[in-house]
Amino acid sequence: MGRWEPNARGRLAKAALELYSERGYEQTTVAEIAKRTGLTERTFFRHYADKREVLFDGSNALQELFVNAVAGAPQSAPPIDAMAAGLAAVSEVFVDRRAHARQRQAVIVANAELQERELIKLASLSAALADALRRRGIAEPAASLTAEAGVAVFKIGFERWIEAAEERTMAQLMQESMDELKAVTAGG
Amino acid sequence: MGRWEPNARGRLAKAALELYSERGYEQTTVAEIAKRTGLTERTFFRHYADKREVLFDGSNALQELFVNAVAGAPQSAPPIDAMAAGLAAVSEVFVDRRAHARQRQAVIVANAELQERELIKLASLSAALADALRRRGIAEPAASLTAEAGVAVFKIGFERWIEAAEERTMAQLMQESMDELKAVTAGG
Repeated sequence: MGRWEPNARGRLAKAALELYSERGYEQTTVAEIAKRTGLTERTFFRHYADKREVLFDGSNALQELFVNAVAGAPQSAPPIDAMAAGLAAVSEVFVDRRAHARQRQAVIVANAELQERELIKLASLSAALADALRRRGIAEPAASLTAEAGVAVFKIGFERWIEAAEERTMAQLMQESMDELKAVTAGG
Repeated sequence: MGRWEPNARGRLAKAALELYSERGYEQTTVAEIAKRTGLTERTFFRHYADKREVLFDGSNALQELFVNAVAGAPQSAPPIDAMAAGLAAVSEVFVDRRAHARQRQAVIVANAELQERELIKLASLSAALADALRRRGIAEPAASLTAEAGVAVFKIGFERWIEAAEERTMAQLMQESMDELKAVTAGG
């Protein structure tokens, strides 16, 4: 390891997202990201495997938080309520991150490869949530269907949260999207 | 176009799936697929863009069938019932195709790139279904949430249908998975 660079990781992530927004993801090189931060490429690769991983850095932590909240819900809670507890927990992460999330999303929707990576992330999340529900004693197919429902609420709630004029919190939008899913599946 | 080859398309698809199963998808070349059918590589490329597309040949037709059934449901039907009509319609395609579907699925789960293609297919299906629901006058986020719910039922119902010992029809499993989703979202 080289010498210690104060918050190199955060500075690299910030510079990367700026450059992806300004020039496009494909047109940006790791050398340019390093240059903008005054750090070396070697430092970049100590923190990130490649320029794509900068955008998906928080995925594992988010999944872990979601899964732990589902696992930690009261044992008496029905699976859909355990899922709602997970959605509430992850909503906390997104407080004060709306501008960043909008900028990141604009980069992702402009690139097919990044969109694929996002789909893989959501599929991985769904599989991990189904696993957490099975460990709570929920049988199949209820576990997988509840997990898919939870990921659908997360996806749609997130998309609403980053809409241009939206001011409601992520927690509110997750709750509303869950209520809406319950209404539509009830045939309303 | 060269001379007419009786059912070249079907023969190429059958040979491709056999070879992907026997040797692995990555290890199989278009030349080998053509050779097994007694056709030329040129004939292969008249029918398929590449060796991956052989496995996803039916995706567009399936999506069209699903979307048309949702669009054609009685206007008075709630969105979740329109979705159920779509699931019933696509189930008809899978009658007598279980052995083929199991073989195809085994090839796909063994290859990350093919799994990604499958996720993209499902995301495209969800977007098309949400669009069909909006054209029925369903507002957002209900349209997108219902579409995601329908795709979740399709995905889980399909996975159950291809399980080793499963003998129920796709139509039965789609119906049961939809009932199960309704039960879990109702807090059951």
